[in-house]
Parts: sequence; structure tokens; C-alpha cells
Amino acid sequence: MHNCLVAQSGGPTVAINSSLAGVIQGAIDSRQFDRVYGSLNGVQGLLNGKLMDLSQKTEEIPMFIELLKKSPSMYLGSCRYQLPDYTDDDAPYAFIFNKFKQFDIGAFFYIGGNDSMDTVAKLSAYAKQINNPIKIIGIPKTIDNDLCVTDHTPGYGSAAKYIASTLLEIGHDTSIYPINSVTIVEIMGRDAGWLTGASALARNEYNSAPHLIYLPEVPFHETEFIEDVKSALKKYNNIVIAVSEGIKDESGRYISATSAVEDTFGHSQLSGTGKCLEYIIKQNLQVKVRSVEINILQRSAAHLSSVTDIGEAFRLGMHAVKTAIEGKTGIMVTAVRRTNNPYVVDMGETDVKNVAGLIKHVPREWINERGNDVTQDFIDYAYPLILGEPVVKYQRGIPDYLNISHLYPNP
Amino acid sequence: MHNCLVAQSGGPTVAINSSLAGVIQGAIDSRQFDRVYGSLNGVQGLLNGKLMDLSQKTEEIPMFIELLKKSPSMYLGSCRYQLPDYTDDDAPYAFIFNKFKQFDIGAFFYIGGNDSMDTVAKLSAYAKQINNPIKIIGIPKTIDNDLCVTDHTPGYGSAAKYIASTLLEIGHDTSIYPINSVTIVEIMGRDAGWLTGASALARNEYNSAPHLIYLPEVPFHETEFIEDVKSALKKYNNIVIAVSEGIKDESGRYISATSAVEDTFGHSQLSGTGKCLEYIIKQNLQVKVRSVEINILQRSAAHLSSVTDIGEAFRLGMHAVKTAIEGKTGIMVTAVRRTNNPYVVDMGETDVKNVAGLIKHVPREWINERGNDVTQDFIDYAYPLILGEPVVKYQRGIPDYLNISHLYPNP
Repeated sequence: MHNCLVAQSGGPTVAINSSLAGVIQGAIDSRQFDRVYGSLNGVQGLLNGKLMDLSQKTEEIPMFIELLKKSPSMYLGSCRYQLPDYTDDDAPYAFIFNKFKQFDIGAFFYIGGNDSMDTVAKLSAYAKQINNPIKIIGIPKTIDNDLCVTDHTPGYGSAAKYIASTLLEIGHDTSIYPINSVTIVEIMGRDAGWLTGASALARNEYNSAPHLIYLPEVPFHETEFIEDVKSALKKYNNIVIAVSEGIKDESGRYISATSAVEDTFGHSQLSGTGKCLEYIIKQNLQVKVRSVEINILQRSAAHLSSVTDIGEAFRLGMHAVKTAIEGKTGIMVTAVRRTNNPYVVDMGETDVKNVAGLIKHVPREWINERGNDVTQDFIDYAYPLILGEPVVKYQRGIPDYLNISHLYPNP
Repeated sequence: MHNCLVAQSGGPTVAINSSLAGVIQGAIDSRQFDRVYGSLNGVQGLLNGKLMDLSQKTEEIPMFIELLKKSPSMYLGSCRYQLPDYTDDDAPYAFIFNKFKQFDIGAFFYIGGNDSMDTVAKLSAYAKQINNPIKIIGIPKTIDNDLCVTDHTPGYGSAAKYIASTLLEIGHDTSIYPINSVTIVEIMGRDAGWLTGASALARNEYNSAPHLIYLPEVPFHETEFIEDVKSALKKYNNIVIAVSEGIKDESGRYISATSAVEDTFGHSQLSGTGKCLEYIIKQNLQVKVRSVEINILQRSAAHLSSVTDIGEAFRLGMHAVKTAIEGKTGIMVTAVRRTNNPYVVDMGETDVKNVAGLIKHVPREWINERGNDVTQDFIDYAYPLILGEPVVKYQRGIPDYLNISHLYPNP
């Protein structure tokens, strides 16, 4: 029997540890692997020999798995390491495959976004090239939901739930004064508007916030925006605007890079979109305005995750082990939505080449014509993904998550 | 039998509706009032005749009370209306007391911060002056915890719990890369550091974030700050800094008003402190840095409130009714901590003049000598206030709060 190896990469989500838990559980249940190794900080752990035996403490596994499923961020840490093309430089490949051999790795599971799927593609192609039978499987994760083929990505549902709940709470917060106000909420998503669109799920029988929604998929026009705000203020005292950090103008330039915000610090990081819109409103309308950037909270708030999301992340981890045992390699496991009502999702898989380096945008027809809201189709798509609340344990008043001191340099 | 009236004022908290629920429950239980009226948008509701009968739907009261206790923001809306001194202009007073008479109000309960206590002081002084027997009682609320006499204020415990939990999640989020990084978290509190200090409650057996804490009570020195960050980066890869929006330099000038951040927009609102520190670090250290502003989420996130806080807010509402029936007026009800271990809080009261317009700062001895952390005394004080998690119901994936469409202009 061989061992298997699992690693995490890219940015954190609330569900990525649940996929890790699924891999561990799947590998143990299969009885096809001696040990489940975890590589710290993605493939870097392999390069510098930082591996953890995740299957060692057998008697504690059920508790560990349960807590892991509900713990935020990345238990194994992350990396931004990008493999070179092996035809240009195969030295890292030789090193990695030597490590695979040293630790007797029969299958490698890599949980990540489309950069990580690029790594899966390269490693599996190299393995094929050198006739190494190792199975290399990608497991999707990203709050951005912008991976192709899979119906949606683990991490998205929880972030969407957090965003919708937060927008509802902001709706309550902004309604208290009988004066006009505008609150802009900047949401993550450089290239795709999936997260920002999920803010529409905040609407209920009484709450109509957010009143305007702007996604990166539609060019942003300042004059139309001002008109939209004016028009909304005729209907509502306090309007809430959800905007993606990645909105761009007609020429494809990020809005956050076009304003004075950049000039102050002399760098163009995408954290100023909300501030830009705040500035535009201040310049053009006499109204109280503030901007709120949800920032990293939307990807790390495990206290408010979606049971649907956490459950599917776990199933994808289990399914990845199954596909490896079936002899598949160079694939990414996927969520396949069979029916929407009732919501039924099967596990599937796709050649990782169909995913690596590609981006899935919100379809134009799921955005209204004016480009300032999503349609019912979008809502029907996103709604099942945010359902269900896990029981989160608290200790001393704060959530009881898994100890991650192994990630610290001086534990 | 007379009626009673209740209103809310100032900024929202997660617990202010629980105090409203306590007033309603207390008034109904006492059988001393025919009706409980709620004034929409603070005293403005009285001025423009927008009153709700909160005791009308008797058969639904238990459900209404339960949901009200857990709903964020302000069910009756708010106002920023400031009464003039009645010796200068008694016209609004005559108008308000005429309304009191019209609605046969025997007691008026005003839930708010120190501005609202100023209103309570003025109205009760005027009542005494004109020999009107109405009882006017203040009920404290503010996430800032900066009201005098009361051990702490309703709303603080929940905001503190949200901040501590969020800082723990940020601790997880920032630990994933084996590189150096600095994350600055800007927390509310213009004048007092109670909220920012509560970030220390995020620390547990493995999490040492936040590694540095800066409160407005101690002058901020840029050079010491840079030294602090350098020193922390020797010990930890990824450091997290909690900073109050209201930190000031030696001359008392807000740090957010001293930097380039102001120059861009030409206004000096206190939302840029985190960005200022980010800028200082970028200018002085070669390290990845980002800033996160928790913003209004810390005062509106009812999905993560403290049972201790919500429960005490309710008791204070009940107690306010009791004091009115006992014939007291011109007072604010208070939380009196009898013992800390076990944590026991009694209800008390104080002359509202001891509270109106005054600010309670974090004692200097609860901040370490260097001014970059709080002491164990602070932690012992704040810790019991964040304990306990309410069961929050969800509907369609988002929290199930009370309908507030009565606050909208076009319901």
C-alpha cells in the first residue's frame, strides 16, 4: 500500500478545510492508503520537507475531522508557488517526484483555485511523460466561484451566505435615520461578480437592500451610476449599493485605478473601489455617503458558513480519493447540479485542462439590461448554496477552531 | 392608568432592541400602563406624531419580544435631534409635553448614549420646573462602552464578541503564508478604546493575534509604532494590529487627520486610521501590509451577539419600568457588577447628570506601559461580557430578524 498526500493552495475559504477533511476521511475509509500526509504551505512543504501525518492519531480522528470541517482558513497553510513549464526547467519536477518516491506517495490531492489546477495539470503531464503511475487530482475551492466546468466552487456558498447576511444587517443599520444616505459595500471578486451578485440574497419581504448591484462583467459608466443613485433615492431614504472590487470602465480599466485614490499611495491595489464610488457620489450629490469594505472577513468568517457548502466540500474531498483509486489522474473533481428544486448535486470530474487558467464569468443574461442588478436566474442559482447553518462551538466567548500553531515559525 | 412611551436614539447596537423588549415586557407585566407607545425616530416621532402602539397585539407579544431581542439596529429608528436649553427656547418642550398630555404619557423611556442622556436630563428638569409628574428614565446603550457610572453599556458585549471572534478569524486567515505580513484592523471608538481593547479576547492557546493594540487613551508615536512592528515581526511571520479609529498624536490630533489620506478627498472623517498606519508601514518597512476596517458590521452583526449582553439589555429595560413605577425620574439605569467570579450584575440607577455629556475612558493602568496592549485587568473586565451565544433563527439562508418596513418612507 502506498501513502497519499494532500495540500492546499491559493487564498483561504471557509470550506477548504472541509475538503481536506473529506480527503482524510475518504483515504482512511478506503483502506487503500497507509498514511495521509499533509504538505505544509502547498507544494512548498514537499520542497522543504514539511509534511504532517494526518492519519496518525487514529483515536482522535472523528473529533479532528468534525472540527476541521468547521475551521476557517487553511489548516495546511498556503503558497503562491508557480511551477515552471517542465520543458523549460524540470529541476523542481525531479525534486518533487523524488519526494513523492521518498514518501511513497501513490496519490496527490491539491485543493485550490485555477492557479492550483495549473499545478495539477503540469504535475500530471510530467508524471505521464516519465511513466510515473502517481494519481494527481485537483479539488476546487475559491470564494470567487470562477472555476469552469464545476457548477460552483466550495467556499462560494459560505462567502455568499456571509455577504447576504451582512447586507441584510447593513440594511437594518442604514434604515434608522429618516434622512437620505448612500452606503456602498465593496465585495471581493476581481474578475467575476459571483460574490457581489450574492448580495441580492439579502432581500426579503421587507428588506430591499442592496438597491443597486454592479458586477465586473458589465462596463461601469459613471454617469449612469449617478443617475441610478438619484433614481433610487427618489424611492428610498437609505440606499445600499453592492459593488465588486473589480468593476471596470468601457476600456477595461479598473475603476479603483482611475481615481484619486491611487494617487495618494502611488500603488494601484484593488482595495479602493468602494472609496471611488463614495468619492463620485460626494462630488455629484448632496447626500450622506459611506463605504464599507467587507474585506477578508467574507472568506474567513467560519462562524457563519453554509452547511450546504461545507457538506459539498467534504464530499468533493471524499470523491477525489475515490477517483484516484479508480485510476484517474490529471482531473479536477466537480459539483454537478442535477436538479435545482429539489437541489441535488452529484460529484463528477473533468480534465484539469478545462479549468486551469480559465475564468467563469456571470452570464450576461443573469445581469439586468441596465447592468445594475442580477436577475431571478442568478438568485435561483445561488440561493440553494447558502442554505443551512452549522452548529459552531464556542469556547470562552469565541469560536472553537482547530489549533493552527504548526503554521507559526515559533510555536 | 396612564400610558408609557419609549424611544431609541444615537447609533445602532445589537442589544438596543433587547432593552426596548425589556421596557415592553416590564410595562405589560407591571399592569401599571394601559399602552406602550413607541416613538419613531427618537423624540422626532413625538414632534411629528409618529407613534406605534407596541402593546396592541397582545396574542403575538411573546414571539415579538423574542424576535425583537435578537434583531439588530433600532426597531423604532433613531434621530440626532438635540434639544435646546429650555431657558433659551422652551417651544419644543411645550410641544413635547403637550404630546405627552395628548397621549396620556406617565413615563418616558429613552434608550441611548450620552447625547440621549442629555435629552433625559433636560426633559426631566423641565418637567420638574413645570411641576409635571411624568417620569423620564434613560436606558444606556452604546457599543463604545464610554458611559460613566454604569459598569458597562448594553451593546458593548456583543460588539466586543464580534470583534474578538473576527480577530481570531483574521488570525487564521493571515497565518497561511510563510512570509512576513502585517494586517491592520481598524475598530470603532472615537474617544475610548473599549472596543479596540476587546480584540485581546481573540487570543487563545494558539492564537496570539492581535499582536499590538493601540487605543485613543495613549498618544500614538509613529516612531515607537514602527519599532513595535519591527520587533513583533522578529517573533511572528504574520502580525495583526488592532487600532482604534480615534488614536491621536501627542498634541491630541487624530492620526487619521494628519496623513495624506485626508488630502485626497479633502475631508477629515475618521475612517482612515487603518489606511494611515498601512501607509506608515509601507513607507518604512519592506513587508506586505493590508488594512481592514470592521466598520458598521461590529455594531449590526446580530447573528453573533452575546447572550450576556442581550440578557442584561433586557433586564435594564425591565428595571427602567420598575424605577418609573417607584416614582423615580431624571435617572439612567445602570449595570452594577457585584462580583466578577462568578460574574454577577445587579441593576442600579444614577442621576442622569452623572452621565450626560461625559465620557468614560479605559483606565491608563489597564493599558501596558508601552501603550501597545491592554493588561490582564482589562481582559478580566471585558471577558464575562462576551459570553454566551443566542440561538439565531435563519430563513432562506439569512438571519430571521424583525420586519422594519415601518421605518421606510414607502412601505
